[in-house]
Amino acid sequence: MVEKKKISIVLFSGDFDKAIAAFTIASGAAAVNYDVNIFFTFWGLNVIKKIKHRNATGKGLLARVFNYLMGGFKNLPLSRLNFAGLSPKLMTNLMRKRNVATLEELINAAIQLNVNLYACEMSINILGLEKDDFIPEVREILGVAKFLNLSEGGEILFI
Amino acid sequence: MVEKKKISIVLFSGDFDKAIAAFTIASGAAAVNYDVNIFFTFWGLNVIKKIKHRNATGKGLLARVFNYLMGGFKNLPLSRLNFAGLSPKLMTNLMRKRNVATLEELINAAIQLNVNLYACEMSINILGLEKDDFIPEVREILGVAKFLNLSEGGEILFI
Amino acid sequence: MVEKKKISIVLFSGDFDKAIAAFTIASGAAAVNYDVNIFFTFWGLNVIKKIKHRNATGKGLLARVFNYLMGGFKNLPLSRLNFAGLSPKLMTNLMRKRNVATLEELINAAIQLNVNLYACEMSINILGLEKDDFIPEVREILGVAKFLNLSEGGEILFI
Repeated sequence: MVEKKKISIVLFSGDFDKAIAAFTIASGAAAVNYDVNIFFTFWGLNVIKKIKHRNATGKGLLARVFNYLMGGFKNLPLSRLNFAGLSPKLMTNLMRKRNVATLEELINAAIQLNVNLYACEMSINILGLEKDDFIPEVREILGVAKFLNLSEGGEILFI
Repeated sequence: MVEKKKISIVLFSGDFDKAIAAFTIASGAAAVNYDVNIFFTFWGLNVIKKIKHRNATGKGLLARVFNYLMGGFKNLPLSRLNFAGLSPKLMTNLMRKRNVATLEELINAAIQLNVNLYACEMSINILGLEKDDFIPEVREILGVAKFLNLSEGGEILFI
Repeated sequence: MVEKKKISIVLFSGDFDKAIAAFTIASGAAAVNYDVNIFFTFWGLNVIKKIKHRNATGKGLLARVFNYLMGGFKNLPLSRLNFAGLSPKLMTNLMRKRNVATLEELINAAIQLNVNLYACEMSINILGLEKDDFIPEVREILGVAKFLNLSEGGEILFI
């Protein structure tokens, strides 16, 4: 039996454009029958927060301030030329116009294609969040050892 | 017959310093006989635009504004301490002074060493660009499935 | 005899949060018996500078200005929401409060676990630095060919 090819992405960034890159690679790879894992860590956790808008979740004042400022899925900034959040909206419009999948569509496609979503234990602890703060498709909260174990035998990209 | 070692770089960033890192790795690897692929996507496309200066290319007003603001090869910013573009110029001077290859020299070296240059289909669609907007050394415009196929059996770096 | 699993990190970034990510992966991997290499390049060199504060080291005026502005270990900025250096301090406090290892503790753990630290020859030349400017745990200053050789047969992450 031939083992399936595998690709694992550490999504550290919460930038709109990098999230698009990550989910384009993830859903593209899953479509050609790769096993795909995405590990969300630090700013990347914003992409999978259940509440999609700015929201002061988390335990402790500092954590709440950070979580508020980080925003959620609808507040991801562009890594360059963000113009206070205008650019991600313009870019989404461009993507619709060109019939390119938007970020929301890419995430849904990835979920349909059984891309495995995991969240990083340490960043969740720092930010005082818990499993219930994330969309239900997140399978597990895990640390580095488990992540390396799941990624073994495939490529790892840090985005 | 031993298969050649392979390294593939997804160049997402259009930062001057990251482009230097990518082409240093690429030409260094090619020099020790690796197969090397670079896939230019999003901001990284600026590095291989034919017209090297700011230029409002692309179809549609929004795309033209983005392409103008992104600039071209001569307008790559530094990822930190950019000072409105002054730093890349200062750094190029430092590189000349220290006899380190400049970005232009690194790109030329990579081309001489048969590094394969590819451009990402989806970002080109979003930005309303076409193959003719890029330097002729770009071999092909391609999507994720083809990219994974070409990268198979080697390392992948996301820069 | 089974060869040890291996992971190599190119730490290009000098951001506080990315350095934490790099050292979390490095020490976590070393703890489960991976061979781990970190190659510090460009801004990443700040993490291993011997003098931990802002300091105008380097040969030549330009290099000295860059080195001063880059700061050192205690001046690593957050990649987002840095607030003039306040955020890394707040985040370190949060990490202490949550009993998560701080960056300094992570670096010490990595060293204890025999993570190999290397510095990039080319960036050191550009910045006019030398081996003696770095902490003694840095094993060697090396170029791309040697780096690829050391990384062979394992994963490579670019951070």
